[in-house]
Order: sequence, then structure tokens, then C-alpha cells
Amino acid sequence: MVSDKFDPGKNALDKNPLASDGLNPDPEKLLQEDPINIEVLKRLTGQSILSVNQFDKELVLEICKFAALLESTEIAKSHPLDGKIIVTAFFEASTRTRLSFESAVLRLDGKIISISDGKSTGQAKGESLLDIGEMFNAYGDCVVMRHTETSAIEEIMPNLRVPLINAGNGSGEHPTQSLADWFAILKWKPQLKGVLKPEEKIHLGILGTPGSMRAVNSFLRMSLLFKDDIKQISIISEMADPLGEELNVKAEASGIKIHITNDINEVVEDLDVIYMNSIAFLGDSYKSLDSRFKLDENTKLKEDAVVLHPLARLDELDPILDDTHHNLYFTQAHGAVFIRQALFISVLNRFNKLPKDKIPTA
Amino acid sequence: MVSDKFDPGKNALDKNPLASDGLNPDPEKLLQEDPINIEVLKRLTGQSILSVNQFDKELVLEICKFAALLESTEIAKSHPLDGKIIVTAFFEASTRTRLSFESAVLRLDGKIISISDGKSTGQAKGESLLDIGEMFNAYGDCVVMRHTETSAIEEIMPNLRVPLINAGNGSGEHPTQSLADWFAILKWKPQLKGVLKPEEKIHLGILGTPGSMRAVNSFLRMSLLFKDDIKQISIISEMADPLGEELNVKAEASGIKIHITNDINEVVEDLDVIYMNSIAFLGDSYKSLDSRFKLDENTKLKEDAVVLHPLARLDELDPILDDTHHNLYFTQAHGAVFIRQALFISVLNRFNKLPKDKIPTA
Amino acid sequence: MVSDKFDPGKNALDKNPLASDGLNPDPEKLLQEDPINIEVLKRLTGQSILSVNQFDKELVLEICKFAALLESTEIAKSHPLDGKIIVTAFFEASTRTRLSFESAVLRLDGKIISISDGKSTGQAKGESLLDIGEMFNAYGDCVVMRHTETSAIEEIMPNLRVPLINAGNGSGEHPTQSLADWFAILKWKPQLKGVLKPEEKIHLGILGTPGSMRAVNSFLRMSLLFKDDIKQISIISEMADPLGEELNVKAEASGIKIHITNDINEVVEDLDVIYMNSIAFLGDSYKSLDSRFKLDENTKLKEDAVVLHPLARLDELDPILDDTHHNLYFTQAHGAVFIRQALFISVLNRFNKLPKDKIPTA
Repeated sequence: MVSDKFDPGKNALDKNPLASDGLNPDPEKLLQEDPINIEVLKRLTGQSILSVNQFDKELVLEICKFAALLESTEIAKSHPLDGKIIVTAFFEASTRTRLSFESAVLRLDGKIISISDGKSTGQAKGESLLDIGEMFNAYGDCVVMRHTETSAIEEIMPNLRVPLINAGNGSGEHPTQSLADWFAILKWKPQLKGVLKPEEKIHLGILGTPGSMRAVNSFLRMSLLFKDDIKQISIISEMADPLGEELNVKAEASGIKIHITNDINEVVEDLDVIYMNSIAFLGDSYKSLDSRFKLDENTKLKEDAVVLHPLARLDELDPILDDTHHNLYFTQAHGAVFIRQALFISVLNRFNKLPKDKIPTA
Repeated sequence: MVSDKFDPGKNALDKNPLASDGLNPDPEKLLQEDPINIEVLKRLTGQSILSVNQFDKELVLEICKFAALLESTEIAKSHPLDGKIIVTAFFEASTRTRLSFESAVLRLDGKIISISDGKSTGQAKGESLLDIGEMFNAYGDCVVMRHTETSAIEEIMPNLRVPLINAGNGSGEHPTQSLADWFAILKWKPQLKGVLKPEEKIHLGILGTPGSMRAVNSFLRMSLLFKDDIKQISIISEMADPLGEELNVKAEASGIKIHITNDINEVVEDLDVIYMNSIAFLGDSYKSLDSRFKLDENTKLKEDAVVLHPLARLDELDPILDDTHHNLYFTQAHGAVFIRQALFISVLNRFNKLPKDKIPTA
Repeated sequence: MVSDKFDPGKNALDKNPLASDGLNPDPEKLLQEDPINIEVLKRLTGQSILSVNQFDKELVLEICKFAALLESTEIAKSHPLDGKIIVTAFFEASTRTRLSFESAVLRLDGKIISISDGKSTGQAKGESLLDIGEMFNAYGDCVVMRHTETSAIEEIMPNLRVPLINAGNGSGEHPTQSLADWFAILKWKPQLKGVLKPEEKIHLGILGTPGSMRAVNSFLRMSLLFKDDIKQISIISEMADPLGEELNVKAEASGIKIHITNDINEVVEDLDVIYMNSIAFLGDSYKSLDSRFKLDENTKLKEDAVVLHPLARLDELDPILDDTHHNLYFTQAHGAVFIRQALFISVLNRFNKLPKDKIPTA
């Protein structure tokens, strides 16, 4: 039972709920002397967001600047998503991602109808995704979908007449997560918007197997867009060929040096950005990790290195790092809500609902 | 993973999301020179919607005309369900029906609290429906309930003091589905509002067992109200007596010729309206169908025949029919949202919230 | 199927949905010549509500008076929770409590994001409650949590920066339920606000094991605050020591006479307030009760005795009592929504959103 050793007396309204003792860079850094170019954002009008392949560096930057604006301004009062219904269709359940999208919509005064688990639906009964797409046309203005099958996106798109945001399709992609990831990295180092000097280019470490893990896949794909700023990408994976054919081709075309290793300690002292993952989860089984795939108090991190993790985490990322300046992962999670808001406003073309002085309406 | 062969570049805001390449009749056809009679709709004030037995042809027509008005007009701005909470109590899970009701409520600015699965509730613990009814009195202004047990309606009504809309009770009824079904049929042939000449009367085919399938039961029950327009109803079922005692009596009293067959091909060439169903589902088991219970490219449909299906479908209704003028089932699904809106506004007596020039307020 | 023996024709909008044929005292009785002291309520600003230990009798009375005000006034129009998102995190599923909280929030124009079942979440995957707390910081303004583990509150609090309302933690506490319980008792006998004369002090019966049943634990704990009004508390339990160490100490310090018995019939004729419970449920197993732990038509209730039950109930409380003046349990359930509204407005400091003439804003 709750004992008197708690202090429920902390006044939880005074503290900035977004504060943590980790790194929490000011989003306004992204906007200094760099106003948002709405013409670039308008490329997303009526678009589905399915893959990082739809993005170039310019579009990534504008979305992140728009998210920074939403994070640093009181937008809600202008009710940008008023009258819009978003369907959160999570055939593969996920608390974190679903609540992130739902919070994003509700704070903009949109509305939600939700499938939080695929087990008790028409899909469970064998109904085709084609028919489910036709159903969504009738019920909402935009669909956010997560599905266990990689082919789910291909299957639903033909009948869907409202925009679809891919929240994860099997071992395919997870594009909005990558935008959240790079939003955090850009807040940490806004100079990445331009071209870094050779001696400043970053060494990026990615733990995981891009060829089979969708968040890692999308993150690597998006990182290649920053080829002018990255000196090396080290992939830490147990697999011999963690990239797969398509990503190998793209990586080679980028000109960035790619290094594969199965031990993070081999490279960690040189890493500037470390993208961690719960690789222990393959399907529903969990296997124990060893120090080759973990970050903890013993890890020899570079002085200013920052760590990302899409969360949920198990023991690959020790909580002892939470209160250090290496912790960029809480900022990453918090920023995801604003990235998703930026996408909804852009896709549903609701720029004219924003305060006029905040964003130029072309 | 998502390849570049997709065209996520389709601007999904330009297309009318309700369009399909099937039949999509203009709802305004129902309203031509036939204004809504609000006195008839007011019969539903404060009423629960439990069975098609509560409806006569006049009330069915007014509800469908009201739905047509809601489908063709921007009603949402007047916030008709402002301040109202609807409880969607789906003790038997159903994505399609639940999302249809929730979309209907949210577009009218009502609010939703939801039970989407009966397995994790007080009902699972053995709590009586009587007590659950008393609970709903405290939490909402209207309840939409779907339940695995036919007796669920009888059990909850005694303690319930807010209107209940039956979204399907075991093998009982599904009255709002039938209204959606006939809304589609009336859009296709508005002359059904009156009395058809003998040579124009329709031959209706119903696949399924009305005595044990609730959507089919309600649909047949509502079809009998149109006895002046129907020359014959053919029931396609494997059962020897698919109607059961009560429906046999009602069918006989209607004067419509009823024909039973176990092979759709025996009658399909003469059918004007074909009501299809997933008869393969009996409980949780699925059995394979043969051509006696299917519509596909080989079926010899009448030239202007239209097909209905409450969906979800398996392989009894081939998708090859989706882009033909026989497809009335997508219109049927889309129209269901407006039928449900018409019911909520009528039951909760919110006519005075509608724009004055759209509906006469008596 | 639904037969014609129903009368769906009851006009369900005319009846006061909160009426029952049980006792339904007027909440305004609590406010007569006793205006709300907002300074006392402001003690809850930004506070988490975790345990009854946070309450003294004065604070209990002010919350109940505030709930009485909300129950008897049209508050909704002032949109007190406008712009606020409440996360209902029900890792242990509960229809009744979750819908009660959600209804409370929606009627005040707040918004909800919801976890209705812990089985399909990050928690199921082994994610720590610490990380889930950090996630909630990003998504909502307040969290309502129910969890199977007693330790869940301790685990989530360190990282949580928004107020948490404990909706039940394992075999810990359920403080908002106790406030709902005493709200009902105070409506029944407002004189309990003061000190009762010796011959009027009440004999309270509690069926259940406070040491292991959280609602009973919190209810006993709160009852001890009314020590000046209670002559005796009789605990009806099968356990030899139903209170456990901590509660034994508190009970002794209160000076109230505590009596333990394993047969309700031993004391029932002298009980003024009887707090019933579903003690048959221990975990997932159900065992049959006998008359020592039941109230039914044979029970020799005192003339003006009132019965409480947090519900859901099985057969320990016979429905034959529902239409008698002993039934305070429906009032108890209905009032819970207003207690929860009072807590949200106080915790989130939204007093200035209330109509000025209704509550003094200090």
C-alpha cells in the first residue's frame, strides 16, 4: 500500500512537464534566422506518409522547423484540426506510438476513433485490408496505421481515398519515428541544417539490423540524406549483412563510409550520435543481451556524445544515463508529438488555421 | 518495405472520399419535392431503437430522408450533439459497426466513452446487465450496445433510463443496419417511396437464414414493410425452414410471395436486389462456400441488379464486382453513418440544433 | 429476438436518469448554510491523489461539498477542463471505474487518451513504469492509473511530472472510491459534517478484508477520520486479522471500538451503515458465499440502515434491496462521477473556469 514515504505534495503543475535531467535543447534554436518555408511543406498536402523515400533533406528540415514552432508556441487556441477525424488503426498494438499520435491530434482539437488491437476486429475475421480501406473512407479524414504485416500498406492503399500515415508496417518502415529522431538531433546540433566542416562531421552509430527492423531502416534511410554532414555510419549488429540489398545500394550511393561491427565497444569512443534499439525483441521472444550491445555506466562514451532510443527499452540502455547530458532520448520522445502535429497540419492542409503571425500563409 | 512503385503522391484531399467506381446515387434524389416531416421523426424522441417492429414504412422513409439531408448538407457546424455523451458498449467486438457509430457521433460534436471488447469488463466478472444498465445511467445520455447474447436487450432495459440503440443482440436483430440497407435501396430507386406498378415491382433475393442471423432477420422484417413494391422474396439458405415461426407468420401476412432455395443460381437472373451475407461464419468457425452461395464473375446478374452486403465479407462476394454498377454495398456502408446520425438527433431530440432553413422545426 | 413485450416506448428523456427507487438524497443538503471553502480545496493544486493518508476530515468535507455543487448545477457550459488531456491508464482493466473517470472528464470538456487493457502495451513487453511515466509527461496533463501491482505507484512517481490519480494499485488503495463512498454517506446524514451526540453516533459495518482489499482499505482509513461520529466499526471477514499491522495501529489511535466477526448476522440488526463488497473474488477465482456474508430479503436490517457497495456485485447483495430505502449504492455510483470532477478541477487548478456566482475564487 502507499506509505507516507511518498511526497505526493510535489506541486506537479509548477514544473515544466517536459523537463528531465537529460539534455533538453530549446526548439527555438532551429528557427533562428530561418523562417519556415511553407511552399516546401505544401508538398505534403493530401499525401500519404509511407516511407522515408518521400523525403529529401529540405523537406525533413522544414518539417522539423514546423515542429519546433509548434513546440515553442501556443497553437492549440486556433483549433487547427477542428472538424477532422483521425482513425488510429493499430492492428499491431502499441501504447507509446498510439498515445503519441492521439495526443498530437487532441491538442489540435481534432477527434479520434481508434482500433487499439487487431485481435477483435473484422481483420481478425479474415476481412481484406482493401475492404477496411473503403471503410476508413467513410469514417475519417486521415488514417494512422500500424500493422504486423509489411505488405499491409500495399494492400490498403488501392481503395483508400484519405491520407494514410504509416506508423509501422511489419519489417518495413516507420517514417514518422525517423522524423522525430532527426528532430532531436537537429535540436542538439542545428548546424546539421547546413554542411559541416570536415573536422566537425559526425560519426553515427546505429544498433540494430536495418534490413529487418523498421525504425532502424527508416532512421538509416533518413540519415543518408545528411551525407554532407556524416563522416561515418557504424552499424552494430549480429548479422553479417544487416543492411540488405536495397539499403546497401543507397548507402553506397551516398558516399558515406559504412562500417559493420558486432561490438559497440569497438566504435563507441568515437561515436557522436548513438541510435540504440531493443534488438533483444525478435517477434515475441526475448533473449539476453551482453555488453557488446549495451550502453551502461561502463561504456566509454565520447564527452559530448548523445544517445537516441525510440523506446520501449529493456536493459540495452541503462537508466543511469537518464540524468546525464548524453540523454537525448527523452527529448526525442517528447518531440515526436510535435512532429506528428506538423505532419497532420501539412497533410490535411490546415495552414490557414494557424495564427497569421506565426507562419507565412502563401 | 514500401517500394517506389507506390504513388503516395495521389492528392487524397481532392478526391471525394465517398466516391467509388460502384454505384453512388445522389442522396438528394430522396428529397426532391418531398420535404422532411418532422412530426413523424418526433415519434422517436426518447425512444430506444431495439427492433424493426417499432417501424412502419412512413417512419423508415422519414429517417432515410433525414439521413439524405445530413449526407448532402454541412450539418456539423451547428454542433447538434454538443454536450451529449454516447456510450458505445460493444461486449461483442466489432470494428466496422463501432467505428460507424463513433464517427456519426463525433461529426455531430457529441462525445464517446467506449467498451470495445467484453472480455475485460465487469460483465466478464459476472456482473449482471441490470447493474450495467444502472451504471450507464450515470455515465452517458445514450447507449449503443452490441452483445453476443440475444437476451441482453431484455436484461438491460428494466434499469436503463437513457435510450438504447441495439447494434446487434446475439441472433436477435440489428435494426440500424436495416435502415442503412434500405437507405441505399431507396437512393437507387426512390420510386419505392410510393407504390410501384405491377410490372415494376422488384424481386428481392436474401442470402442467409433470417431465423438465426440478426442482420438478415431485421432486413427481411423491414422489407415486409415495402410489400406494395415487392413481387417476390427469394431466400437462399441451406436450412429447410430459414424464417422460423414468427417471421413465417409476418411474411404470410404481408402477401408477398416467398420462395426458398438453396442455390442462388436458381433465381439470380431475375433478382433486382441481392442481399448478400457472410453465411460462412457461424460463431467462430468458417466453412468453405460453393457457387450456390456466391456472387462472382460467372454469376448471371440481371442487367440493372444491385447487390448489398452489410460487410465484413469473405469470398461470397467477389471484389471483381466492386467497380461495376451492381455495387451498391459501398454506398450502403457510407450511408450507415448518416442513418445513425439521423437516429441520434431524433432520439435525443436535437432538431432545434439544426440550421433553421434545412429542416422545419414544428 | 426482441419481442413486442418490451415497451421501448418509454420516453427516456423525461425521466431523471439519476433516479432510482432506492435512496437518492438531494446533494444540496450538503451545501445548506455551508459555502465551499476554496482555500481548503487549493491544498490539492498540482497534487497526486494516491492515498487516503493525504486527507483529513476537513478536506474530505470540502471535496464532497464541491461534488454536491457540481451535481446540482449546470457546470459544463463553462468548460472547466478545456485544453486538458487526461490519460486513463488502466493496466488492470475496469469498465466501471474507467467509464466513471472518462465521463467525469468529458462532461467538463476535457479530453481522454486511454489504455483500457495492460495486455497489449509496452508494459506487456517488459517496459518499466519509470519509462511509462516519462511518456505520460509528453502526452497528457494528468494521469489516472489502475494497476495489478501494489508497487506500481512507487515505481511510476519518480519520473512523473504531471499529477497522478490512483484508481487502484494491487492490494493498496483506491482513494477516489472512498471519497465517493463518504459523499453518499454525507448526503444521507449531513450531520456527520459535525460531531454527533453520543446516542446518535453510527455503527458502521464493513464486509471484507481491509488488509488485502484496496477499496475496503481506503474506506476504513477514511472512516477513521470520522471518529467523532462513529461508536463502533464491525469488520465482517473470514480472516483472523483482517486489518493488518498498519491499520490496526491507526484504528487503535482513533479510539473507535473495533469488532471483528465472521458472520454479518451477528451485528446486522445494529448496523446503521453497511459497506458490502464482492469478497468472493480473490484474484480470478470465485467461490460460493453463504449467508454469513450476504444481504438478502432475510437479513434483519435496522429500519433506517443504508447499504453501500462499490460494485460490481455478484450475489452478496440481493437485487431485492434495490427498490428499498436501504439502497444507497446507486447514489454512491452516480456521485462518484462528481467526486472525480471535483478532484480534477482542484488538482488542475481550474477554479477560475467556474461560474463566478457558484464558487468564491480566492
